[in-house]
Amino acid sequence: MSYKVNYSPLLRAHTPPARQCHKVCDVAHGSSMKGQTLLSQADGAVLCGSDPPDDSVKALKAHLWSEETSEMERLLGKCRIRSQLVRECMAECLGVYILILFGCGSVAQVTTSQDKKGQYLSINLGFALGVMFGVFVSRGVSGAHLNPAVSLSLCFLGRHPWMKLPFYIFFQVFGAFLAACTVGLQYYDAILAYSGGKLTVTGPTATAGIFSTYPADYLSVWGGVMDQVIGTAALLLCVLALGDQRNGSLPDGLQPVLVGAAVLVIGVSMGSNSGYALNPARDFGPRFFTAGGGWWWVPIVAPCVGALLGTLIYQLMIEVHHPPSPSELQTSCQEANEGKTGLEMEGGEPDCVKPT
Amino acid sequence: MSYKVNYSPLLRAHTPPARQCHKVCDVAHGSSMKGQTLLSQADGAVLCGSDPPDDSVKALKAHLWSEETSEMERLLGKCRIRSQLVRECMAECLGVYILILFGCGSVAQVTTSQDKKGQYLSINLGFALGVMFGVFVSRGVSGAHLNPAVSLSLCFLGRHPWMKLPFYIFFQVFGAFLAACTVGLQYYDAILAYSGGKLTVTGPTATAGIFSTYPADYLSVWGGVMDQVIGTAALLLCVLALGDQRNGSLPDGLQPVLVGAAVLVIGVSMGSNSGYALNPARDFGPRFFTAGGGWWWVPIVAPCVGALLGTLIYQLMIEVHHPPSPSELQTSCQEANEGKTGLEMEGGEPDCVKPT
Amino acid sequence: MSYKVNYSPLLRAHTPPARQCHKVCDVAHGSSMKGQTLLSQADGAVLCGSDPPDDSVKALKAHLWSEETSEMERLLGKCRIRSQLVRECMAECLGVYILILFGCGSVAQVTTSQDKKGQYLSINLGFALGVMFGVFVSRGVSGAHLNPAVSLSLCFLGRHPWMKLPFYIFFQVFGAFLAACTVGLQYYDAILAYSGGKLTVTGPTATAGIFSTYPADYLSVWGGVMDQVIGTAALLLCVLALGDQRNGSLPDGLQPVLVGAAVLVIGVSMGSNSGYALNPARDFGPRFFTAGGGWWWVPIVAPCVGALLGTLIYQLMIEVHHPPSPSELQTSCQEANEGKTGLEMEGGEPDCVKPT
Amino acid sequence: MSYKVNYSPLLRAHTPPARQCHKVCDVAHGSSMKGQTLLSQADGAVLCGSDPPDDSVKALKAHLWSEETSEMERLLGKCRIRSQLVRECMAECLGVYILILFGCGSVAQVTTSQDKKGQYLSINLGFALGVMFGVFVSRGVSGAHLNPAVSLSLCFLGRHPWMKLPFYIFFQVFGAFLAACTVGLQYYDAILAYSGGKLTVTGPTATAGIFSTYPADYLSVWGGVMDQVIGTAALLLCVLALGDQRNGSLPDGLQPVLVGAAVLVIGVSMGSNSGYALNPARDFGPRFFTAGGGWWWVPIVAPCVGALLGTLIYQLMIEVHHPPSPSELQTSCQEANEGKTGLEMEGGEPDCVKPT
Repeated sequence: MSYKVNYSPLLRAHTPPARQCHKVCDVAHGSSMKGQTLLSQADGAVLCGSDPPDDSVKALKAHLWSEETSEMERLLGKCRIRSQLVRECMAECLGVYILILFGCGSVAQVTTSQDKKGQYLSINLGFALGVMFGVFVSRGVSGAHLNPAVSLSLCFLGRHPWMKLPFYIFFQVFGAFLAACTVGLQYYDAILAYSGGKLTVTGPTATAGIFSTYPADYLSVWGGVMDQVIGTAALLLCVLALGDQRNGSLPDGLQPVLVGAAVLVIGVSMGSNSGYALNPARDFGPRFFTAGGGWWWVPIVAPCVGALLGTLIYQLMIEVHHPPSPSELQTSCQEANEGKTGLEMEGGEPDCVKPT
Repeated sequence: MSYKVNYSPLLRAHTPPARQCHKVCDVAHGSSMKGQTLLSQADGAVLCGSDPPDDSVKALKAHLWSEETSEMERLLGKCRIRSQLVRECMAECLGVYILILFGCGSVAQVTTSQDKKGQYLSINLGFALGVMFGVFVSRGVSGAHLNPAVSLSLCFLGRHPWMKLPFYIFFQVFGAFLAACTVGLQYYDAILAYSGGKLTVTGPTATAGIFSTYPADYLSVWGGVMDQVIGTAALLLCVLALGDQRNGSLPDGLQPVLVGAAVLVIGVSMGSNSGYALNPARDFGPRFFTAGGGWWWVPIVAPCVGALLGTLIYQLMIEVHHPPSPSELQTSCQEANEGKTGLEMEGGEPDCVKPT
Repeated sequence: MSYKVNYSPLLRAHTPPARQCHKVCDVAHGSSMKGQTLLSQADGAVLCGSDPPDDSVKALKAHLWSEETSEMERLLGKCRIRSQLVRECMAECLGVYILILFGCGSVAQVTTSQDKKGQYLSINLGFALGVMFGVFVSRGVSGAHLNPAVSLSLCFLGRHPWMKLPFYIFFQVFGAFLAACTVGLQYYDAILAYSGGKLTVTGPTATAGIFSTYPADYLSVWGGVMDQVIGTAALLLCVLALGDQRNGSLPDGLQPVLVGAAVLVIGVSMGSNSGYALNPARDFGPRFFTAGGGWWWVPIVAPCVGALLGTLIYQLMIEVHHPPSPSELQTSCQEANEGKTGLEMEGGEPDCVKPT
Repeated sequence: MSYKVNYSPLLRAHTPPARQCHKVCDVAHGSSMKGQTLLSQADGAVLCGSDPPDDSVKALKAHLWSEETSEMERLLGKCRIRSQLVRECMAECLGVYILILFGCGSVAQVTTSQDKKGQYLSINLGFALGVMFGVFVSRGVSGAHLNPAVSLSLCFLGRHPWMKLPFYIFFQVFGAFLAACTVGLQYYDAILAYSGGKLTVTGPTATAGIFSTYPADYLSVWGGVMDQVIGTAALLLCVLALGDQRNGSLPDGLQPVLVGAAVLVIGVSMGSNSGYALNPARDFGPRFFTAGGGWWWVPIVAPCVGALLGTLIYQLMIEVHHPPSPSELQTSCQEANEGKTGLEMEGGEPDCVKPT
């Protein structure tokens, strides 16, 4: 680790162009509390120009006491991947990993502590906050689908390219599988102690339900399909409403919280029949851990149907009826004119006040 | 599905005016994470002007990998309804549907799982978050009344036209009825298993309470009326305070969350007497499902009285006393002058510093 | 009710100056969803200038279908009180009323339903959300003290005039008393049924604890004083940190929510000893309802001591050490110079970079 | 307390530069509702200039009724410490104090009330909201690490100077110790009554678990290490995602709330094995109160490993892959050019579009 760059804060004091530099550096310093702009702060210092160090003891001391660019961040920076698709796949994978880590973790805690360290509401909170942090981890990179049924709906609406769909789905399932492994590792002792060493899918000390969803005893297959379709449709209705800018704006950063709230309310109101999977990846990834029964296809197929249904309901009841925004008016103008000859172009605009 | 428009991203590279276009498209691309502006992104691409496709393989590939306007969104766009009243009725209907779907769903879950998958607090959360998402779904279109008593109060204050009142009320009740049907469908197996096939209004396995509210055994009719009047008045007090810009501003998007919190606190503090209907539509719509007793009129009449009472209290204690804003001063100026002859108009302003 | 002003929307169409008006009105219409600016919308229409009505049937129809200024709002406007002190007293009274209505209501619900419709956490939520809505109701008018101990601390810091203190305290206690009456009315049947008609302060069906706080059996008086001092000091620490702009900013509207969260966490972590009164008004107002014992002075004296203590801790550990803001630098400059002769005024500024 | 300074509002009238002051004062007055800028309001008033007092009764009256600078705030201002390090240490100390006061307080409440005044979820809420308010108290001064493992990770990333690390750690542990003392004082009577006077680490009425964490009976040491590593890594993943501006922005003031939510979800999903210490200071400070066993080193070592692990995962999967921001591009430009001779400087920019 070399300290070459570290001398600069010290030296700025006696170099003439340092004057206006202070301002820049102070600003960077002021925002340094968020812990994210420290890199650019130190880099800002570099930009201010500085002479070679003439007092390395002082400089070392300054280095040890002030926040500055580290070799570590530089080293990490060398690992940067530029492929957008790889970045998106990693983000989806990590997002679903977080979701399942917290979600299935809360089921494991409630199950193995026999309701002493949490109740059904804890599980609802675990999945809700798991989804919220999954969205926070991946929103800026992949758009935080975290759910094959959501990816499918967005492809269907034309808001996501179909060719990316298999990649997204694979890494969503893979992230869920990794998270199930982690939960299994973290609760290994607890699951053994709780089940007496016998890992079973049914019975009083069944632990398969920690990882995947199973229907209640009374539930028919048709009832389970209905349950999943209605739940996923309700989820999509809420998520689309939250993202519909023309219905009302949201402060940046509140959307992931409210997506979590949607998962919370679905868990509170639609969780008892079959465990609100609503997400093929959430259910299928962890199921590799446990023996499946005849139920496995329901949390894969029904959420996709439900997601498309919820999308259509919200579109047909609210979103498509919004009056067009100015930019859309202009566009439809353009489109209308594309059917005509190029000569009509300049005279075309008056027709376009009402979009076709 | 034709790919005509899809060639454009490819072709922009060799057309001269594409230069300044990139900026526009990049901006659109940057905001594409919210999933709502993708349509305009692709449209923006169209605006950039492009030559006819000369390489359809490349173009098809580009299409499959990039996000762009879909035929689907165009198809959905054709369903657009322009009538403001129809849009408002659909929004109220869908908003109340969401509210009851989550609210009554949570009662069904707690009841049929016999408190194993939720307790009274889950029901409080179900209605609170149900109201929140009901508001998010409808706020930009109809103003999210979701409650005939609220619509009535707003008409009374002159903030909503009286003629729209019956339409709003009908579609609020209709949305609640549809939601009760959906909850009945989703919990069909569970309700049958819980009640042993006997659907009853009273008794140890009564399930009518999933859909409508019933008073506690000890409650007199007069006590029930008081309960509903106080609860609805408290709701209106809170909602009016949240919307009173001169009392303090709120970030856009926080208001629906806090309206949900108002419903939560009322459920936590005024729920045990008669189930905090507070909303004629919430109670009357689902009641078609179940046999009614002598109680049905209380959750219809008392919330309306309470809503008017709460409105009056907040108005008379807080809102009417706010010092007038500059625009109101100007208006009252104008009004004062309207009583005079037109000639006094230009000299009228000095009198108007203090509104009459 | 006269419809004079209602013609204007209709008439604007054929008056020449209506052109640039449309913009104004559309803007007003766009913001009309919040339900608070509808008054100014209609007034805006008035400002656009219009001819006398020539078709009153059409005008009446337009009136009935559009949102506009009502006679009701005009009538309510006549009740406006201009005295700042009276407005502040009403706001404090209504704010504490809301706080106690929800807080004591939640205790009544949990007590009379014997933990079936809520548990201790519901009571924590009832007081937390009660404080939150109490703040929302009064924040813009009185600053939302809602607590004599808070008013006292602010007077002590010089942030509130001492002369207003008795008025604030009286109306805080009065609001709490009114709320206790309301809770008593709302839960009259429930309390009678629960207690078998015997209203007692102690015993298995005691109901005095619904209204005031009582210490746990094991608690010594000194332990109770400590409990209240620590609790109120923690509350003030949190509230002062939330309001300390130089420690970090908060979006408008989040502060009341976080004050509610402070009350929630105190209820969750300091509630079991003596019921976290923390507020002389919260305890003393409702106590008129019930027989008091030797405990009554603790929730009055100890919160005041605790509030001063918390204020001092936050001041001495965080707030006084913030580097001075530019405006304070200027002021201390000025003050330093006031001690000198006026002639030194213009030369005084260089000394003032470091405040004295 | 003398009222000398109170005449000043009166005296301001006869100084010439008072004119442009009015504006300043109005601004200050407008923001006075938040209760934190009242000091500058009154100071602003001093600048506005007024005649010498000719009627000290009036002046006194004005003083008593209006909000103005107090002797108290001036007195407190004299205690201001200018050393940045001392301020940061005090902030870390107070922040951890708040965290442990609420966190361990909630454990004490649930334990001594035997689950009657709270359940495991209350403890989750106590720690979550404790962390949140700890962050609010210290975020603007020290950056709110509140955890030696977090400080270590930030030093490792080069975002915090290594030399400050021992100071931070000492005051974090010291704050936790003080808080444990306070909880011990507040729950002294309750702990004695609950344990029958015998303070034990194990057994049915053990109270050591109020202060420090102990593993579940079934947990192996290796399982405990895994549990702590996974939990702390998950915490760091969430916190780094919340602070990663290039992944998505957050409104100021929401970040502390969401850090609290991260602690909540970890408590809900990873709390039953060994009590989610995740923080050497949280566990080691209070442990001085109680007898330790062979477990004490796990909550010290494992969180540090976990924090570094979580940091690396987030860095390598999300943050390092963000496309560079414009300012970073410029910097890497500069750096690339530093390797060349100074003459190439002006020609160096074109190479720099792609950072090296």
